[in-house]
Amino acid sequence: MVIPPESLTAPQRTQVEGLGAGTQPEPAIHAFNISVEPPSLGDARGDAERLLGAMQSQHGLACESIDLHVLRDLPPRLRQYAWCCQAVVRGGKVIGVGPTAGRLFGLAVDLGTTKIAGYLVDLGTGETRASLGMMNPQIECGEDVITRASFATRPDGRQRLQEMATGALNRLVADLCGQAGARSEDIADAVIVGNTAMHHMLLGLPVAQLVVSPFAPAITHAMDLKARDIGLHIASAASVHLPPNIAGFVGADHVAMLLASGAAEEPGPLLALDVGTNTEVSLVHGGRIASVSCASGPALEGGHIKDGMRAAPGAIERVRILNQGSQPASVQYQTVDDAPPVGICGSGILDALAQLRNAGLLSPEGRLTAEHPLIRGEGRQRGFLLAEGAEPGRQAITLTQKDVREVQLAKAAIRSGIQALMEGAGCREEDICQVIIAGAFGSYIDVASAIDIGMLPVLPPDRFRQVGNAAGAGARLALLSVPQRAAAQSIASRVRYLELAGTRHFMETFVEASYLVRYRLRGGSRAAV
Amino acid sequence: MVIPPESLTAPQRTQVEGLGAGTQPEPAIHAFNISVEPPSLGDARGDAERLLGAMQSQHGLACESIDLHVLRDLPPRLRQYAWCCQAVVRGGKVIGVGPTAGRLFGLAVDLGTTKIAGYLVDLGTGETRASLGMMNPQIECGEDVITRASFATRPDGRQRLQEMATGALNRLVADLCGQAGARSEDIADAVIVGNTAMHHMLLGLPVAQLVVSPFAPAITHAMDLKARDIGLHIASAASVHLPPNIAGFVGADHVAMLLASGAAEEPGPLLALDVGTNTEVSLVHGGRIASVSCASGPALEGGHIKDGMRAAPGAIERVRILNQGSQPASVQYQTVDDAPPVGICGSGILDALAQLRNAGLLSPEGRLTAEHPLIRGEGRQRGFLLAEGAEPGRQAITLTQKDVREVQLAKAAIRSGIQALMEGAGCREEDICQVIIAGAFGSYIDVASAIDIGMLPVLPPDRFRQVGNAAGAGARLALLSVPQRAAAQSIASRVRYLELAGTRHFMETFVEASYLVRYRLRGGSRAAV
Repeated sequence: MVIPPESLTAPQRTQVEGLGAGTQPEPAIHAFNISVEPPSLGDARGDAERLLGAMQSQHGLACESIDLHVLRDLPPRLRQYAWCCQAVVRGGKVIGVGPTAGRLFGLAVDLGTTKIAGYLVDLGTGETRASLGMMNPQIECGEDVITRASFATRPDGRQRLQEMATGALNRLVADLCGQAGARSEDIADAVIVGNTAMHHMLLGLPVAQLVVSPFAPAITHAMDLKARDIGLHIASAASVHLPPNIAGFVGADHVAMLLASGAAEEPGPLLALDVGTNTEVSLVHGGRIASVSCASGPALEGGHIKDGMRAAPGAIERVRILNQGSQPASVQYQTVDDAPPVGICGSGILDALAQLRNAGLLSPEGRLTAEHPLIRGEGRQRGFLLAEGAEPGRQAITLTQKDVREVQLAKAAIRSGIQALMEGAGCREEDICQVIIAGAFGSYIDVASAIDIGMLPVLPPDRFRQVGNAAGAGARLALLSVPQRAAAQSIASRVRYLELAGTRHFMETFVEASYLVRYRLRGGSRAAV
Repeated sequence: MVIPPESLTAPQRTQVEGLGAGTQPEPAIHAFNISVEPPSLGDARGDAERLLGAMQSQHGLACESIDLHVLRDLPPRLRQYAWCCQAVVRGGKVIGVGPTAGRLFGLAVDLGTTKIAGYLVDLGTGETRASLGMMNPQIECGEDVITRASFATRPDGRQRLQEMATGALNRLVADLCGQAGARSEDIADAVIVGNTAMHHMLLGLPVAQLVVSPFAPAITHAMDLKARDIGLHIASAASVHLPPNIAGFVGADHVAMLLASGAAEEPGPLLALDVGTNTEVSLVHGGRIASVSCASGPALEGGHIKDGMRAAPGAIERVRILNQGSQPASVQYQTVDDAPPVGICGSGILDALAQLRNAGLLSPEGRLTAEHPLIRGEGRQRGFLLAEGAEPGRQAITLTQKDVREVQLAKAAIRSGIQALMEGAGCREEDICQVIIAGAFGSYIDVASAIDIGMLPVLPPDRFRQVGNAAGAGARLALLSVPQRAAAQSIASRVRYLELAGTRHFMETFVEASYLVRYRLRGGSRAAV
């Protein structure tokens, strides 16, 4: 029953790498070839003073100090290199000494609750030399932020989460270096973005206060730390830059997305969404930015769904219900990598709901109709049959009534968040000129389906832009360019964070937003479109 | 045969604490009581931003960041202290958060090759609350700098020496805190001085290049490090300030001595000496400072002397040879703590040589006369009997011909160093208006004896000032006062280091200076006074 690909909209997998491409490298670190005067009995200066003096006279650089770890290697290295070396400088400090004309790499990381994406970037050319993804090993301490935060309150829990995060990054670094033929000690700078909880866990900051009202972060400002202070094994004196967070549930990954997508510079009204277990939404309008965090839960990533799964091979990612005459008769689907179906992922779930609505098998309130040959089972198992078991003994894949409810909660949370922003800014949905959807899930959804079930506002298709891992692209921009770091800080400081629980009409809006119809919301009321 | 104390010059043990007393505390760190606004749903700022904002609004302080380790404790502490706390600030960074009106201590250390002296100072009042000395445990890796530097070249040798140094400092901190009823986490700042090799070993810097010509230090500039970066267990975000070194064998301890004694501010000509295994000598003259390092060896500290010992209980520290008629007949001595004699320390050795010369038992060339009842033994054991064995079975204490040779080498090295400075500056010895003698040994010697054997120039007694552990006093000054740190840096940058091996007449001077007579030196020639 697998259908030919051309009958479905191809998921957009290629836009990720385009964001921010062509940025002129203006990194935080610079390398200089230096010829150092050897010591003599008539010249009692230290090796450090020799190096700093040569940098001043040969490059006009007034460096103030040399990192302790670099200093520990300086005397043998200067002698090994016969007094000609490359000095790596960051903000007036020498953070590396190596052979002349050595290569300089940077590390950019999007540290997600579930997945970690890493990029090895040549800081001279701006090229991404390797990129890799891996699961966040903290998952074993809790799939979601709340469970993980509770783990952090155990004795040594915080330290263990910290070590897990840096352990994962160190493996990522080793693999990226293997891929690019680089050495970890050649990585002289790093930028890491993540949500606020991942940021805190990476730094060993407490999260207990982050997950209870009023959800206070330990810090939101951008930070610059020594890589070694968090156990990250790159060049021993390298820094790690952590772009600013916005609030307890809107982190630096969202800032990075706003940066990479260019959203913050648009006149707007523009919506920018990172869809996930938490969905962060920003409204850019007339130079202002307002952000909310929506507790959308795991349903859109396949969690809490009977046959749900992540977008791995065999996941149903597209669904069409075909009519025979005027009656829905059969299901077409597409799976990731065209593998035999083993479950359904978020984009497939959205499609399925929209198709069930269009076929008249699902009410606007989200109730599956009583009678149809493809609606089977009883009680909690009752559901719409998407795919027979691919092989004998393998279970059929169904979308149950309970699954529908989970998706309704998820999409109502997102839509209510959007609505709170629109109301706060006095904007009308129909005036929105662009909707940017970021994140793995956001890249693969069929926007038309999302509109049909009322998850997204009704707007012409050309106003939607699915941008993939924009957070990772933002991290790379910040890695490559100090002005981009400043731009990220400027974006974060422009953002007004809106706590949904404190907004007007929230409960009414949430109830209205759970309906599976195309609509406009205004002041908590729904108008069909 | 113990003599009454009044017949001997009492060693000057009390001047140490006087240096730099009354300095107005202007420490590098400051504490502020802050009332922080608790978070609310309408205020998404992080705890860090709340604290920094309150510091700005309540004290006009524009702090830029909070140390990572402080940030890790900030959320629970702010809640524990009900949002009222004391913030400790250093150079625009928050380095501590504690309960309001907490006490602030500082640690000053003189890290010697043999002995470590530590002081716990109240940074509010400037009072020294506790002081302690201990042996440097690195001694087990070599008594002198050269042996220890060779140990450093073994695998892990450098790291082991580093850990020994910080291990000793951590024990010192614990003991000082015990003495003063303080907690190590209340120590928010530290200053450590030592010779260049001890400085390097404490920081884990390589020393191989330091002990071979041209004796190049890794660094001479002053440094500010995080205490945790060298494993020092004081407040986790505290800094350690290391005043500048001058050259490979003239370290920050000498700078601290010049600072505390006020030597650098004198018009001069003034000589300032730190006597030890290496003796550092500075000549201050007309606003300029020149320094040399003299390889005086261990003899003046009791090393390489048959019955030599440090100035511990039972060490003979004063010697007088009494005449019967015109013949030397008996020996009077004083021991440390008036304990039964078990050996002889540096000041006793100098006295013994001077008394033997005055008694006509020792030639100007350093040869013991052939015939005298107190000159006994044969070959290498031949020597002057200072004390019979105190108890049956305990050995007699003698000063041998070989011991005399060791002292001659030591004092010739020091005198040659002085002479090189005088020649370099075109000064005459008789114009020297002050000679400052620092260090444990220097405090206890009888200056008259040192002049009599030609170790020190012939000058009236009132031109000599024995100042005790001036390096420790200088460390306390730098701890208490940022302007004093600047003054130390200014002193170091004014110093011209003179490498003795490269000076004119060095060998002639050395030979002349080995004579055991009072004399003036000029251009390598000796003139009796």
